[in-house]
Amino acid sequence: MITVTIIGSGNVASHLTNAFLKASDITLAQVYARNIETIKHLEGKTAICNQLEDLHTVDVTIIAVSDDAIAAISSKIKSGLVVHTSGSVAMNALQNNGKKGVFYALQSFTKEQAIDFSSIPFCLEAEDNKDLELLESLAKTIGNSIYYINSDQRKKLHLAAVFVNNFTNHMYTIGHDICKENKVPFEILLPLIKETAKKATLISPKEAQTGPAKRNDQKTIENHLENLNSQQQKIYTLLTESIRKTTK
Amino acid sequence: MITVTIIGSGNVASHLTNAFLKASDITLAQVYARNIETIKHLEGKTAICNQLEDLHTVDVTIIAVSDDAIAAISSKIKSGLVVHTSGSVAMNALQNNGKKGVFYALQSFTKEQAIDFSSIPFCLEAEDNKDLELLESLAKTIGNSIYYINSDQRKKLHLAAVFVNNFTNHMYTIGHDICKENKVPFEILLPLIKETAKKATLISPKEAQTGPAKRNDQKTIENHLENLNSQQQKIYTLLTESIRKTTK
Repeated sequence: MITVTIIGSGNVASHLTNAFLKASDITLAQVYARNIETIKHLEGKTAICNQLEDLHTVDVTIIAVSDDAIAAISSKIKSGLVVHTSGSVAMNALQNNGKKGVFYALQSFTKEQAIDFSSIPFCLEAEDNKDLELLESLAKTIGNSIYYINSDQRKKLHLAAVFVNNFTNHMYTIGHDICKENKVPFEILLPLIKETAKKATLISPKEAQTGPAKRNDQKTIENHLENLNSQQQKIYTLLTESIRKTTK
Repeated sequence: MITVTIIGSGNVASHLTNAFLKASDITLAQVYARNIETIKHLEGKTAICNQLEDLHTVDVTIIAVSDDAIAAISSKIKSGLVVHTSGSVAMNALQNNGKKGVFYALQSFTKEQAIDFSSIPFCLEAEDNKDLELLESLAKTIGNSIYYINSDQRKKLHLAAVFVNNFTNHMYTIGHDICKENKVPFEILLPLIKETAKKATLISPKEAQTGPAKRNDQKTIENHLENLNSQQQKIYTLLTESIRKTTK
């Protein structure tokens, strides 16, 4: 049995809280939030508090707060192994006196949407193998996919995630805007969006590349540019140029 | 029973050929290709030819060739309704003397990968309702999802598809490059890629946007820029700026 405390009430914290409450072989000892109202609904399911001094000693304390707050909060935690859940903060940013680690679930969390941790990769880091194994046992109570990733690799992974998630989503937004402006249902594009993502799981994205930029089809490219606003034109031109460079 | 002839042996032509050969209520009368070798494997399944003069009269002749060749080939076809399969060519680019239409299946085709037309939207256009209904009957023998889309809308849809498919795939390529350079398995990002696509089917991409650009998290943005090459920096900066404008 692993005892765990969660610090935070944001997206990651609340999804982890729900998952650990359902998991076996885990005791969720406490949940902390600065504003107790944000975790009031957990009463009866676990102990809640809004004073760091009220935290008990547990096996793992998971700090799931905004990047900027990690150092300050961790400096006040005296309990065993303390981990954060951030993709872009180094393990050594933790300021507790005890042992440190990282428990990073690589996914885009939104509070309203249910999360199935069984399909989400956990990227783990710790100062020694014993702690790494503890974090692995913890991750396996809610997930299947475990990676040992150090702080530098995690930083790069988080950067790659910005491209495949944030920027990809912005491509969807532009596609959505073009459809809306021209009274075409965006839903027509959904099977293509799904297929594009699926293809990335089957072949490398470089092999999967198609389209006018890849073919260097200048006639279509010019035609497309004429139908875009200036911001969209800038993006179209830069990405077309970048695909050309990759193709060469 | 609808009789159909397919002109072409490229990605779209060969996937349509295979689908129509399996479909009921369809007679695939002939397949034409300039180079007969590219369709030799169809012998025994349907009639093949490499002379446009050898084409018989059918209900629908589907021209699935490169955009540039559509006008010239169509000018030599005397049979009933003639349609092309291009996203970016207007219906009136067809130069046959008879009736014209468009039979555009919106998907990214690669020859090696099997295509399930039942999940692909067909965007249909014709000069009158009777022909539109004929194309709808034809599409329904292999698909489920039918839209009536005129030439101008189709052009915009094709442009939107470049963003959600070609440019999205390029975002995957950059993510892949970053992983490779830093010896992180790209597979860690696959669940995120799938989830990002899935979210587009559930909420609008504007609502789904997350990340440092959306939050205007300058510290993370600067940190990310330091870890990219100059081409990647240009893309990161432009897309971050564009997300900021969309968010405001």
